[in-house]
Amino acid sequence: MKSPSSLDFLTEALRRLPGIGPKSAQRMAYHLMQHDREGAAMLGRALSQAVDRVQHCAMCNTFTEHDVCETCLDAERNPALLCVVETPGDQLMIEQTLTFKGLYFVLMGRLSPLDGIGPKDIHLDKLISRATDGIVQEVVLATNFTNEGEATAHYISETLKARGLKVSRLARGVPVGGELEYVDAGTIARAMLDRRTT
Amino acid sequence: MKSPSSLDFLTEALRRLPGIGPKSAQRMAYHLMQHDREGAAMLGRALSQAVDRVQHCAMCNTFTEHDVCETCLDAERNPALLCVVETPGDQLMIEQTLTFKGLYFVLMGRLSPLDGIGPKDIHLDKLISRATDGIVQEVVLATNFTNEGEATAHYISETLKARGLKVSRLARGVPVGGELEYVDAGTIARAMLDRRTT
Ligand SMILES: [Zn+2]
Ligand SMILES: [Zn+2]
Repeated sequence: MKSPSSLDFLTEALRRLPGIGPKSAQRMAYHLMQHDREGAAMLGRALSQAVDRVQHCAMCNTFTEHDVCETCLDAERNPALLCVVETPGDQLMIEQTLTFKGLYFVLMGRLSPLDGIGPKDIHLDKLISRATDGIVQEVVLATNFTNEGEATAHYISETLKARGLKVSRLARGVPVGGELEYVDAGTIARAMLDRRTT
Repeated sequence: MKSPSSLDFLTEALRRLPGIGPKSAQRMAYHLMQHDREGAAMLGRALSQAVDRVQHCAMCNTFTEHDVCETCLDAERNPALLCVVETPGDQLMIEQTLTFKGLYFVLMGRLSPLDGIGPKDIHLDKLISRATDGIVQEVVLATNFTNEGEATAHYISETLKARGLKVSRLARGVPVGGELEYVDAGTIARAMLDRRTT
């Protein structure tokens, strides 16, 4: 049996998706051809369109279809505050808290020397120019509280403080609603050290 | 933050892939836009091309880019033998054994009443016309030895025998190299009942 070359090409191309091995790719290709050609055509169009249109915002580095994204163009926001996040999803989470009305910079990643992800991969040069525009007064680091996120925050903090900027970090502590019995010891220890006068 | 609509469209379209939920779809979309636009463009082309070109073989029902596939057009094969398999992958496995030189019919599925997959979904009408062409003498059922595969084989067997065809089934038994201690009791029981005079 010889498989048709279009099907082989599709199976091979599906393997470019992260986390998809040869078996899954073949199952997906068969599924699309057998049961969902409309979906396959739609995905094909979506990919071409995204490749053509999606770029990085010149100011905040997030995905946008314009040179500068809507958030960066929002005149209601405080341009003196710049919040640094790892991903567009993280930015969305912070927006949903309604506690931050400044602007953002999206690293599109985190430092991870073991995976070969260095300062260039998280667009540190772009962040430095953005943060030193003379308008930004404070950079709020909102990378994740994982080892890599913490290391990224530390590296960015040192770099920006050396340029005279005020740099802050989201507070660590016991989560709202958290019962001490179920919170890990490291979090409690940090909350104790960072305890605030009431 | 408003996501660009091309990215939303892509994320939504990726969810048409089997087994891909909203989180995976977003991760894939970000990955493609951030790290592999070439892969995204290639997958887009592969999908469009497959939708345009891949069809079902008029004789054996497998995927092909022509009206009739290469296997069905192979004059070296014995047209009196027709082997019924569930998927193109199963056909490939049988081809690799070099034990069968007849033709095939690919169901592209198996009967599964609980999933709403009935005789029409496995192209039973097409199989009946194919098997009753006056040339086919024996239909070899090579569906899987799962509950669904067995039920599919039984249903097809009854249908084709009623039309006067000889129908056979791949033999069950202890696998080659199988040690009895590690083979399940059901397999051994079946091998005992099907024992052959040597
Ligand atoms: Zn922006
Ligand atoms: Zn064929």
